[in-house]
Amino acid sequence: MVDDVSGDPSSERARPRAPLSAPVRLFVTGGTFDKEYDEIHGTLDFRDTHLPEMLEMARSRLDVKVRTLMMVDSLEMTDADRSLIARQCLEVPEPHIVITHGTDTMVDTARVLAERVPDKTIVLTGAMIPIAFGSSDGLFNLGGALTVVQVLPPGVYVAMNGRVFDWDDVRKNAATGVFEALR
Amino acid sequence: MVDDVSGDPSSERARPRAPLSAPVRLFVTGGTFDKEYDEIHGTLDFRDTHLPEMLEMARSRLDVKVRTLMMVDSLEMTDADRSLIARQCLEVPEPHIVITHGTDTMVDTARVLAERVPDKTIVLTGAMIPIAFGSSDGLFNLGGALTVVQVLPPGVYVAMNGRVFDWDDVRKNAATGVFEALR
Amino acid sequence: MVDDVSGDPSSERARPRAPLSAPVRLFVTGGTFDKEYDEIHGTLDFRDTHLPEMLEMARSRLDVKVRTLMMVDSLEMTDADRSLIARQCLEVPEPHIVITHGTDTMVDTARVLAERVPDKTIVLTGAMIPIAFGSSDGLFNLGGALTVVQVLPPGVYVAMNGRVFDWDDVRKNAATGVFEALR
Amino acid sequence: MVDDVSGDPSSERARPRAPLSAPVRLFVTGGTFDKEYDEIHGTLDFRDTHLPEMLEMARSRLDVKVRTLMMVDSLEMTDADRSLIARQCLEVPEPHIVITHGTDTMVDTARVLAERVPDKTIVLTGAMIPIAFGSSDGLFNLGGALTVVQVLPPGVYVAMNGRVFDWDDVRKNAATGVFEALR
Repeated sequence: MVDDVSGDPSSERARPRAPLSAPVRLFVTGGTFDKEYDEIHGTLDFRDTHLPEMLEMARSRLDVKVRTLMMVDSLEMTDADRSLIARQCLEVPEPHIVITHGTDTMVDTARVLAERVPDKTIVLTGAMIPIAFGSSDGLFNLGGALTVVQVLPPGVYVAMNGRVFDWDDVRKNAATGVFEALR
Repeated sequence: MVDDVSGDPSSERARPRAPLSAPVRLFVTGGTFDKEYDEIHGTLDFRDTHLPEMLEMARSRLDVKVRTLMMVDSLEMTDADRSLIARQCLEVPEPHIVITHGTDTMVDTARVLAERVPDKTIVLTGAMIPIAFGSSDGLFNLGGALTVVQVLPPGVYVAMNGRVFDWDDVRKNAATGVFEALR
Repeated sequence: MVDDVSGDPSSERARPRAPLSAPVRLFVTGGTFDKEYDEIHGTLDFRDTHLPEMLEMARSRLDVKVRTLMMVDSLEMTDADRSLIARQCLEVPEPHIVITHGTDTMVDTARVLAERVPDKTIVLTGAMIPIAFGSSDGLFNLGGALTVVQVLPPGVYVAMNGRVFDWDDVRKNAATGVFEALR
Repeated sequence: MVDDVSGDPSSERARPRAPLSAPVRLFVTGGTFDKEYDEIHGTLDFRDTHLPEMLEMARSRLDVKVRTLMMVDSLEMTDADRSLIARQCLEVPEPHIVITHGTDTMVDTARVLAERVPDKTIVLTGAMIPIAFGSSDGLFNLGGALTVVQVLPPGVYVAMNGRVFDWDDVRKNAATGVFEALR
C-alpha cells in the first residue's frame, strides 16, 4: 500500500508514499464483462476476453500480466473452478491480483479466496453491462480495481461502481443489482 | 485509508477494513477530458462537462458531489485559477477530493495544492483522449481516481492510466505524453 | 425517385434530378435493432426504441415521422401484427416508408406488404447487432434505408448491409446470417 | 438505377427491379470523417483512414473497392487534387463511385466532377463529426451513400444526413453547417 512509515514521523522521508510501480496480475474468469452478442443466434455468449483491448484503450502504464482462467457465467462457476482460481492466486509471484468475475457469485468466490490465499491483495471486479455495449461500466470498474489494488493492504476486496468492500462486508442486492455493504 | 489498526492485532476487529462509504468531492476544471468537437468550426473546445454522464455510465454508487470550477485547457490555467482550486479544496467539508484537470500542467497544480491544503486526500486525474471520443481513457482514469481517493492517506496524488504517483514524484513526459515517476 | 424525364431529352431541365425533400415515415417494430441488455436479469429485451437518438446522432435533415407500432422479436411476429403494419402503411399519407424490423422474418413481412400496399415505396431494414452495442451495423443500415427510400420507384425492398433487394428476390441465410439474392 | 423497363409494361418482368450487386468504388480524400485526436499535441490530424473498419462494422456485403487518394482537410484541397480525383473516377472501371470528402468544399469538388466525368454515378459524402468520436454521423452517411449510389442514374450527387442533392442544387450553410438545397 504505502511505504513503511517507520523512523522519525516528522521527517519528510516518513511521509506515506504512493506505491512504487510493480506488476499486477489480472485473472479473467468471464462474467458479464466479457459477454458478446452472437449475431447468428441472437444470444449472449463468450468468445475472447476484451481485457487486452480495454487495457489498450485505458493507455494502461501498469505492468499488467493477463491470464484467462475460464470464460463462464458466474452462476455456472463450480467449487472446482473456485479452487483453480485460489491455486492460481497462490502460485503466481505477484502480490497484487485483480480478478474479473461475474457479479452474481463474486462474493462467494471472494470468500473462498479469503480462506485460502493469505498475504496477497486481491480485488474482484466486474460489470453490470457487457464491455461490448457502448454504455458499459466495465472500464470504470477496471480502472478502479487496478488502481486500488496497489494501495490496499493484503486482503480480499470487491471493487464495483466506485466503492470498495471487504469480502465479508458485501452482498449483491438481487433486486436492484447493486453491491452494498452489510454494515 | 483503512480503519485504524490500533488495539489487539490478533482480533477480528483489528483487521484493516475497506473504507466506509463517505461523500467524495469532484472538482471539474476542464482539460482534454471535457474537450468536444465543434462541428461548425472544426475545432476542439469546451461546452458542458461530461462528468455527470460518465458517473451515470459508471453506475457510480459513491456519493459524489460534482462542482465545475472552470473549463480551461490546463496550458491556460493561471495562478489565480490554482488559488481558487486550493481555496475550494479547503472550504468543502469532504476530506476526499478528486480533480479532473488537463494533463499538461496537472503536476503544477498538484504542487500548489500540496503546499496549501493539508490533511485532505486529493487525487488529480485527466485523460489523454477526450471523453467524447469512443476510445478515451477517461472513464478508466476516473474509476481509478474515485476508487483510490477513498483509500489513500492524506496527501496530493496524480492517478493516470492505472498508476498512482505522489505529487512530488511525477512528471508528464512531453515527448511521449506518459506520466512517469522521477524516482 | 427522379423527376419525370418526358419532354425534350436534350434540355437541361430533362436531366434526372435528385428527389425534392419530402417527409419519410419510419415505423418501428423492434427486432435486434432495439434490443437492450437487462442488467438485473442478464438478458436481452426491449425498452424504448433507439430510433430518435439515432436520428439525432445522424444529424438527420430529413423530415422523418417516427411511429412505434410494436416492439417484438420478429420470430414472435404474428399475422395480426403484419396486418397492422400493412394497414398503417396504407393509412399514413407519406409515400415513402422505412420499417425497422427483426431480421429473421423481415422477408415474410415484406411479402405481406407487397401484396397489400400498392403505390408506395417501402424499405425494410434492421441490424445484425443491437444498436446499444458499440459495434452495431444499425446506423449504417438506417442511413442506407432512409436515403434510398426517397429514390426507389414504388415497391417493397429490403436494405441491409449496403445492398438493396426486391422483396421477392431475397432471403436471410440462416447459417451465415447474411441477406442474399435468390437470382 | 433500375433495370431497363423496356418491353411489355404489364408483365411481371417489366417491374422495376432493385440493382443487381455490382462493385462500388470508394475513394477516400480525408475530411472530418477521418480526423483523429493527436494525444501528444492535443490537435486534430490525419492518420490512416477509418473506412475499412467502418465497412467491417457495417457488415457490408457490397463489393467495395477502397482507394485512398489523399488525406486532406477539404479547405486545403487544390485544383490539382480535384483533377486527380476526376482522373481516378474516369480511369476505374466501376460505374458507381462514392467519395468521402471534407464538407467545406464538397460542393466545389462535385462541380468539377460533373464537368469532367460523364456517364458515371458519383456520390460525395462526409461527416460533421469525426468517425473517431462516439457520436459521429459518419456511419449513417456512409450507409446512405453506398446504398443510394447503386440506384441513382448517372450524375454527381451529395448525400449527407439522410438527404440526396444534385451537385448543382446544394450548398453548405456556413453558419449552421447544414447542407441545403438551392431550390
